[in-house]
Amino acid sequence: MAKHTHIRLECDFLGEISLPASAYYGVETARALQNFPITGIAIKQMPELITALAWIKKAAARTNSSAGLLQDDVAAAIAQACDEILGGQMRDPFAVDVIQGGAGTSTNMNANEVIANRAGELLGDRPGSYKKVHPKDHVNMAQSTNDVYASAIRLTIVQRNQHLIDALRGCVAMFTKKADEFAHVHKIGRTQLQDAVPMTVGQEMRGYATALGEDIERLIEIESLFLEINMGGTAIGTSIGASEYYQTHIVQELARVSGLPVVSAADKIEASWDTGAFVLYSGVLKRIATKLSKIANDLRLLSSGPVGGFGELRLPRRQPGSSIMPGKVNPVIPEVVNQACFRIFGADTTVTFAAESGQLQLNAMEPVIIWSIYESSTALIAALETFAKNCIGGIEVDEQRCSALLSASTAQVTALSPIIGYAKAARVAEAMTDRSLTIEQALRETVPDQTETVLEELLR
Amino acid sequence: MAKHTHIRLECDFLGEISLPASAYYGVETARALQNFPITGIAIKQMPELITALAWIKKAAARTNSSAGLLQDDVAAAIAQACDEILGGQMRDPFAVDVIQGGAGTSTNMNANEVIANRAGELLGDRPGSYKKVHPKDHVNMAQSTNDVYASAIRLTIVQRNQHLIDALRGCVAMFTKKADEFAHVHKIGRTQLQDAVPMTVGQEMRGYATALGEDIERLIEIESLFLEINMGGTAIGTSIGASEYYQTHIVQELARVSGLPVVSAADKIEASWDTGAFVLYSGVLKRIATKLSKIANDLRLLSSGPVGGFGELRLPRRQPGSSIMPGKVNPVIPEVVNQACFRIFGADTTVTFAAESGQLQLNAMEPVIIWSIYESSTALIAALETFAKNCIGGIEVDEQRCSALLSASTAQVTALSPIIGYAKAARVAEAMTDRSLTIEQALRETVPDQTETVLEELLR
Amino acid sequence: MAKHTHIRLECDFLGEISLPASAYYGVETARALQNFPITGIAIKQMPELITALAWIKKAAARTNSSAGLLQDDVAAAIAQACDEILGGQMRDPFAVDVIQGGAGTSTNMNANEVIANRAGELLGDRPGSYKKVHPKDHVNMAQSTNDVYASAIRLTIVQRNQHLIDALRGCVAMFTKKADEFAHVHKIGRTQLQDAVPMTVGQEMRGYATALGEDIERLIEIESLFLEINMGGTAIGTSIGASEYYQTHIVQELARVSGLPVVSAADKIEASWDTGAFVLYSGVLKRIATKLSKIANDLRLLSSGPVGGFGELRLPRRQPGSSIMPGKVNPVIPEVVNQACFRIFGADTTVTFAAESGQLQLNAMEPVIIWSIYESSTALIAALETFAKNCIGGIEVDEQRCSALLSASTAQVTALSPIIGYAKAARVAEAMTDRSLTIEQALRETVPDQTETVLEELLR
Amino acid sequence: MAKHTHIRLECDFLGEISLPASAYYGVETARALQNFPITGIAIKQMPELITALAWIKKAAARTNSSAGLLQDDVAAAIAQACDEILGGQMRDPFAVDVIQGGAGTSTNMNANEVIANRAGELLGDRPGSYKKVHPKDHVNMAQSTNDVYASAIRLTIVQRNQHLIDALRGCVAMFTKKADEFAHVHKIGRTQLQDAVPMTVGQEMRGYATALGEDIERLIEIESLFLEINMGGTAIGTSIGASEYYQTHIVQELARVSGLPVVSAADKIEASWDTGAFVLYSGVLKRIATKLSKIANDLRLLSSGPVGGFGELRLPRRQPGSSIMPGKVNPVIPEVVNQACFRIFGADTTVTFAAESGQLQLNAMEPVIIWSIYESSTALIAALETFAKNCIGGIEVDEQRCSALLSASTAQVTALSPIIGYAKAARVAEAMTDRSLTIEQALRETVPDQTETVLEELLR
Repeated sequence: MAKHTHIRLECDFLGEISLPASAYYGVETARALQNFPITGIAIKQMPELITALAWIKKAAARTNSSAGLLQDDVAAAIAQACDEILGGQMRDPFAVDVIQGGAGTSTNMNANEVIANRAGELLGDRPGSYKKVHPKDHVNMAQSTNDVYASAIRLTIVQRNQHLIDALRGCVAMFTKKADEFAHVHKIGRTQLQDAVPMTVGQEMRGYATALGEDIERLIEIESLFLEINMGGTAIGTSIGASEYYQTHIVQELARVSGLPVVSAADKIEASWDTGAFVLYSGVLKRIATKLSKIANDLRLLSSGPVGGFGELRLPRRQPGSSIMPGKVNPVIPEVVNQACFRIFGADTTVTFAAESGQLQLNAMEPVIIWSIYESSTALIAALETFAKNCIGGIEVDEQRCSALLSASTAQVTALSPIIGYAKAARVAEAMTDRSLTIEQALRETVPDQTETVLEELLR
Repeated sequence: MAKHTHIRLECDFLGEISLPASAYYGVETARALQNFPITGIAIKQMPELITALAWIKKAAARTNSSAGLLQDDVAAAIAQACDEILGGQMRDPFAVDVIQGGAGTSTNMNANEVIANRAGELLGDRPGSYKKVHPKDHVNMAQSTNDVYASAIRLTIVQRNQHLIDALRGCVAMFTKKADEFAHVHKIGRTQLQDAVPMTVGQEMRGYATALGEDIERLIEIESLFLEINMGGTAIGTSIGASEYYQTHIVQELARVSGLPVVSAADKIEASWDTGAFVLYSGVLKRIATKLSKIANDLRLLSSGPVGGFGELRLPRRQPGSSIMPGKVNPVIPEVVNQACFRIFGADTTVTFAAESGQLQLNAMEPVIIWSIYESSTALIAALETFAKNCIGGIEVDEQRCSALLSASTAQVTALSPIIGYAKAARVAEAMTDRSLTIEQALRETVPDQTETVLEELLR
Repeated sequence: MAKHTHIRLECDFLGEISLPASAYYGVETARALQNFPITGIAIKQMPELITALAWIKKAAARTNSSAGLLQDDVAAAIAQACDEILGGQMRDPFAVDVIQGGAGTSTNMNANEVIANRAGELLGDRPGSYKKVHPKDHVNMAQSTNDVYASAIRLTIVQRNQHLIDALRGCVAMFTKKADEFAHVHKIGRTQLQDAVPMTVGQEMRGYATALGEDIERLIEIESLFLEINMGGTAIGTSIGASEYYQTHIVQELARVSGLPVVSAADKIEASWDTGAFVLYSGVLKRIATKLSKIANDLRLLSSGPVGGFGELRLPRRQPGSSIMPGKVNPVIPEVVNQACFRIFGADTTVTFAAESGQLQLNAMEPVIIWSIYESSTALIAALETFAKNCIGGIEVDEQRCSALLSASTAQVTALSPIIGYAKAARVAEAMTDRSLTIEQALRETVPDQTETVLEELLR
Repeated sequence: MAKHTHIRLECDFLGEISLPASAYYGVETARALQNFPITGIAIKQMPELITALAWIKKAAARTNSSAGLLQDDVAAAIAQACDEILGGQMRDPFAVDVIQGGAGTSTNMNANEVIANRAGELLGDRPGSYKKVHPKDHVNMAQSTNDVYASAIRLTIVQRNQHLIDALRGCVAMFTKKADEFAHVHKIGRTQLQDAVPMTVGQEMRGYATALGEDIERLIEIESLFLEINMGGTAIGTSIGASEYYQTHIVQELARVSGLPVVSAADKIEASWDTGAFVLYSGVLKRIATKLSKIANDLRLLSSGPVGGFGELRLPRRQPGSSIMPGKVNPVIPEVVNQACFRIFGADTTVTFAAESGQLQLNAMEPVIIWSIYESSTALIAALETFAKNCIGGIEVDEQRCSALLSASTAQVTALSPIIGYAKAARVAEAMTDRSLTIEQALRETVPDQTETVLEELLR
């Protein structure tokens, strides 16, 4: 007898389904939970997506109300429900799996249902009634998943992008600091893992800062692609079901509500299926990851040893390195950075497949696109943060070893070429390498009459 | 004053760290939690990995005990702790992130610490003491992460593989059932999306069963690659730190404990760094995913419509298809299957990068390899299960439409070629297509004197 | 006795090697031919690369001459040899394999040797003598492969980019033409392969034009990344071996010689190893390819049939479609477009691996990066050109079928929602689909009292 | 007047086309040349494909003749033309681009036309007449591109596979030789680029041999997947247009003609579209490439220096390493091996896309699949051969450095753990590293009373 109070029944045109009596979500969310048990990760784990949905639903309610098509009290209740979500409440019922069929319809309906139920509640209704506020007729008024979801995932990227920029800045700042700190330490530069010519540790570190710094510019640039949205296009960009007023006002209302400078896509038909911005964003993440992984590799290489490696740098010791080898300490932070990067490379493949799979007026694979990019950006932010905090900041240099390697090498021979020609300089290098001569000894053998001049020149 | 009861201090050669007083894990796990906040997903979410670690630790304790190097009561306590884990207990403290630097050392140490603390507790010690049972000297005796982790992730695949085979069998059975059910329905076969020649819906469905069925064989075959393990090799395969007795007995003891026919790798040096088996396994998952995605695409295509598409099949209606278009129902299950496949393609890229990144005596990127494959197999199993249950099983065929399309098409013209030659048959087809003639009308025009013979031949 | 006239001997510090007496290339090219028989494709097949090398060598010679470090007659001879190459001559001896070890050194030396031999010849010397003009001391003066090659491959992209933009423009123009041509044809829009709402064929075609048109902007934007070059940085960006004068003048001289607005990289150390621009360019190519492949898929879908498919479009018939099925015509041009796109996706993976593999002061994998991108751009240009010329331009629409499908569908039901609500509209759609009613019949059943008003509204 | 002798006209149902009068190919090849100017690489550059086509056409002619459906003299002429092709003649007219639309129809028709023209010529006809031997009615009798091409590309792999196995064997033999040669040289083993425990250079080399050797087994295993062919299935596997006799005899005749143990696919419907074998083969190539690239990386690392690197190995000096740095020698062969591997990774992405793109009864993307795999196998074979010949065979070891690094390191401390426990052993290692103590000095400090016992134990 008590039991009937714990579940409620809802129905759609496919029939009835039972769900927890107090659930803020409704029948369509419940169906999605049955259909898509793929990852076990709910969309609430993309908080920026939920925020974007709340912005959109609020803006739509206000625009529809201004258009005279939605009763003021209903619009107000919807707006309030959205504000609660924006304030961080009501997020648990956003429960559908991040990977879902239906092109995001389940996500959009999850939002419509939660907001309808909460707004209804504010007007005195109970969950599942939908008499005061209906998920489709009211909350989704003048909208389609195909403009709501497409816009929401773009605004998710916009929000997320800022975190990533911050994390990049953190790494760049750390490398810049190290560049200053080690500006005076001379070392051997290497190309193709072979000793090349002299440089400083500071120059090496500054190179890392420069490389990552450039990506901050790329991330800022690309943001504009995501501010162009198709709200008002409804099902396929032709604006069917949306009033004239709504079509011309929804984007500016959304700009007001979100505080973001969103603009309306010029060709909404195209904007409904095109996912090119995501492909490019994933490409930029991949670009960052190639650099970051290269830098992590460099640090692992430069700190290799302690005896049998390059041994120029000492990374902070973060944890015992082995369960069997006493005293061994490993470059665990760069290693985890590498792995985060490999995930990003993988996600890019996923995004490419999904983007290529658009068909006609829609790309039904958008859910896996946004989830893959979201996951990539999470991994990248985490990697950058642990890299900056637990590794880069504590890098030390073994000045003595840097100096010893440099003077034992033929790195300075390149400077001889303009003076004595490449061929003779090569003989000097050979003599140094094969018979362990100093540069002076090798010069005296090879170019006895020029030795003094050359040495003078080198010292300048 | 109360506070000191809630935390305890542990130290390693890097210093002291505080952790919850009752935690079963220890200092090295605690360090890993600080170092690797990458995905937020703990290794306990790969239950087969924890099981494999418990098998290994139990087998090692028993072998060391038989070798006379580990006290019997300590060995027994370790074995009991492992049995508890195997029984599903003590899994929460397996807390390190699935993506981690250190080549799996944190995972191995997490296991060593949990088992040492629990075994110690069984012998009357308290967590963090390690006096009775030490994580390294006892639980990890004669082992290195480099053989423990490498072996544990292989046995994870072996366990997981069975689930995948079951899920594949489920799909194959469903398609076989549909092949029988629709064996009598004639339809037009299509190549390059153009009408080709006749076939039955049953043949089409059986093709799907055949394609997926072949992969069951591949999965069974490949399992043997994962049963070849490097236990006993310790740090780099040279068996340093392991007794003669242990080296020769650990693998057979592990076979006994796990019930799996594991064998010892012939070249343990190589087995310590080689990740080729994972690359190949990921390749097999990818092979399955290419087929599965193709089949999902086919079903979406064959059920396209209801008016403006192929319309031969009707997929079960799983949820309302649109927030704006009334009555629309979409192929949401095949769509989520596609997306799961795209994730698998992405994971394969990740695995390739990680496998290529092995260096010298180890591949430090194994954590991202096992996690990516594990996630792929989860997605694949989930996709196969929802596909079989929520889609394939309920497929219906529109016999009338199949028949109508077939008779209106030129599909039977190919059968004319051997009788009247390709060139004349092409003229028949052209007449049918361009002027909507029946095959008989077109024959009468093109080969008036052969028409009767040909029609007779076609009817046989 | 005659034979000695056909070969000549050259030597480097590794010893002697024989090569054809009249060859314009020299010892280092000859070594590369032995070392890298990988693809059988010579660098001359990237004509823009040879052009870029000639620009650089000419600019360097002039700058060194202005600096007073290279004799005027030698500089003039080098410049003249470069001009001959720029005029299309002397290209055959650019013979080393496109995929090569050595970070491009063989390509740079191939250029140095050809130019030295030709310039020497102009001054009266014979091939292989190098007395008047030396490949390293003169032609390569103040340069390193690491700035020459890195700059040359960037300028290759810049030149190539213009062809790609032109090819894109060609496709966009064709789709725009079709958009105008079919602006009046109403059809059913489809999402998730299911009938959705009405649109025009013109809108669909314009969407394709818009999507590809946006990439022209992306390609123009990205070009600036390749105009930032590291000339003057020599071996690792520290400018070792280059005079002050040269360092400050080489880039502006190169701008003059090439006519391209090249600028000097701010951090030449970083610019020597960073390949991020290539990763991003490959990402843009991939973005274009995802769109192009989607569009090719759409055209194949929309032209599927003739009986058992969508049948809205007719693609130009380009070749008989089958060796066995008479009269069959296939969408061969979109199919080859798809395959070109798949190659581009593959090349992007290659570029990612190569970019990630940079180490310390250089990325030794640049040769495979430039070759993969070059090949991608060739495939993309070829695909766009054959698409525009052999397919898009000749697309015809089956207006009757478009119209028939539209009126038989429930596509107009969406327009009912704002009037009678989603739930009732869904019942109308159901009645139409399940019992083949017209929209009017279904309305009379479902909302008898509103039917007239609704019909009136729909007609507006 | 003379000019008309140089071209001839041919026509198909799309109209007339002119081609060189003496061309052995015909109208459909000519159309393909216009339609697919994608790579500029003709199918004759896959000689094994042309061979496979000749086998198939010969076997088909003989089977049709035995079935009494093809005149004996025509069959004999076709067989003779095929034999000429098998003997290496008549290959130039195989001219269509390797990447082509039409699912291989152009390749099949290219073969049909060349063989028809040559066979006709043998019977006294002239090219382009097709009166005695018709490309479709005779040469293609009872066949479709969909079984001919699918089978031919499988037999291409089978032939190619043997070359690859040979190349792998060459590398394995070289590493095995080096393993024996360096069996006595002790060195430091490294994990995560940090000094770990002792091993020999021989063990390291043998690991490489083992790793690559395992792939020979994989390649042999996988071959059987390609021996299962769909000949006799014609258009979609239903055998339309093929006589009963032909269906049951073609595969065994092909086995006879080719000398390969081909068998008939059990489900020819499925075999007509399934490309899973190619995905798996590409996966095996990728597996080899991950190992090969890792090994190349190791060699580059171990030979890094000469001063500032690991310096254990000396690779053969193959070419001067720099255009500016005198005496520099780079690991150019491993570098080109890496790049070949990166191409293979890219090709695998292409294959995945193409395999996923199969639709209904065919995969129209087979041309890009076979070309990508063919190119991969070419690159892999070339890389293995230059690696074996120009690098591995000449590797030398710097025994002195190996020994010096080993004794200066803490590599032997791991052997202490079982004796004095991990914690004390860690203190020994720390003392050695931080204060440059010898192991004996560190032992005396840390475990004074156990020092003698421990030293004794270590020496055993």
